[in-house]
Amino acid sequence: MADDKQLMAQVKQWILEAGEEVKRKLQDPLIVEQKSSRTDLVTNVDKETEAFLVEKIRSHYPADQILGEEGLGDKPETTDGRVWIIDPIDGTINFVKQRENFCIMIGIFEDGLGKLGFIYDVIKDEFVYGGSGTGVFLNGSPLKQIEDVPLSEGLVGVNGTMFVNNYMSTRNVGLASSGFRILGCAGLDFLHMFMSRQCAYVSNLAPWDFAAGMVIGHALGLRCSRLDGREADIIGERVPFVIATPSAYEEIQALVIAAG
Amino acid sequence: MADDKQLMAQVKQWILEAGEEVKRKLQDPLIVEQKSSRTDLVTNVDKETEAFLVEKIRSHYPADQILGEEGLGDKPETTDGRVWIIDPIDGTINFVKQRENFCIMIGIFEDGLGKLGFIYDVIKDEFVYGGSGTGVFLNGSPLKQIEDVPLSEGLVGVNGTMFVNNYMSTRNVGLASSGFRILGCAGLDFLHMFMSRQCAYVSNLAPWDFAAGMVIGHALGLRCSRLDGREADIIGERVPFVIATPSAYEEIQALVIAAG
Repeated sequence: MADDKQLMAQVKQWILEAGEEVKRKLQDPLIVEQKSSRTDLVTNVDKETEAFLVEKIRSHYPADQILGEEGLGDKPETTDGRVWIIDPIDGTINFVKQRENFCIMIGIFEDGLGKLGFIYDVIKDEFVYGGSGTGVFLNGSPLKQIEDVPLSEGLVGVNGTMFVNNYMSTRNVGLASSGFRILGCAGLDFLHMFMSRQCAYVSNLAPWDFAAGMVIGHALGLRCSRLDGREADIIGERVPFVIATPSAYEEIQALVIAAG
Repeated sequence: MADDKQLMAQVKQWILEAGEEVKRKLQDPLIVEQKSSRTDLVTNVDKETEAFLVEKIRSHYPADQILGEEGLGDKPETTDGRVWIIDPIDGTINFVKQRENFCIMIGIFEDGLGKLGFIYDVIKDEFVYGGSGTGVFLNGSPLKQIEDVPLSEGLVGVNGTMFVNNYMSTRNVGLASSGFRILGCAGLDFLHMFMSRQCAYVSNLAPWDFAAGMVIGHALGLRCSRLDGREADIIGERVPFVIATPSAYEEIQALVIAAG
């Protein structure tokens, strides 16, 4: 517990430092490259931020494993020991096109169990971090308890492609809610969840997209899993993922099952 | 010109004052009512903010006509003289569920010509206002010129229902872009346009949704019209509407025409 709190304070400082550097670099032209397609981008800042965080972890905790979106960590094959999962810039298209609406995210796991999560909206300066052992904080203050909002009374964040194709009932989920939003950054959807500004988020996520949000979500009493109800694998493939209030989670599971 | 500048300064102050009051009222429980459906809401703050603005206009400019979303103004049947178009809380569902991501908007027209527009994201404190005669300002500083970003290189905001149904090619527009977003507040999409954070916005809008954005957009060299290319009527019905950079506007018109 005391160790968790110290680790939380340390990682929080690293991320704040990384955020300052990101803001500074936004003054200069970005170097933007395509990854798998013209809408899958990476910039020098994604890579440099991951390098900064990997270096911090390696120098302080050399025995730990690291999974980073930009591949500067390891390729963990087991979840034994301590595993760090990093998304240096979540929402890279927003970062490039809007220079806002992106997050830095880290999830920390021990023997597969979520210990700490960190999600930092750099430009809005909204930083949520913590876990079950430490409690969860928003910019230094304990976060209020989540309201158990049912699907019909809350907003939901969706993945646009899943929504258009009604993949695994995603469109039905959106239409059963008070309204659906597409933000282009998983971290922003998780932050909305933690502040009771949304009751659910359904998307197709890689471990670096959901690791931090899953740890914090569980600590706050939210439900999260693969959309089919199975547990999400923190060193696995990209999967349809859901985080929701307990009530909305049950309603979403019923919609997914009804659709077969 | 001098008169426009004085009017701009005066209305800006009214809106800032209204914004302070809105923030104060967000501390108290809201009184929420349904209008046409469970996702079409109005609150006491929508009505009170419109009443405040209507009273200001009436007391200073009794000869002017006012069209307000909540119906506290007039029902203008002509665009003769000066017409004020008010959306006291644009994005009411966001306002109720998120307590952020909403705007106060006013458009001012003289004999049908756009003179001044005001869009204020109250919580983010991002306020864009002005017109062709005065220039356009962001929180007191002249706004930089818009970049003429083509559709493939920019983000677009879309209306969810139009997108799902590919109504008038809206989905094709989204898929031809760098990414599509659904924000639930027209004012936020207009602000993204003015800051070159988006290259287009396609939605189904009433005059109070587009009046302010159209005036400011024209002053900044953006194109805007009904989605079919006809001029939008500031005292008319809700219509499919587009605002875009000159390049993206031409591409969108071609997609709409291709779809018939």
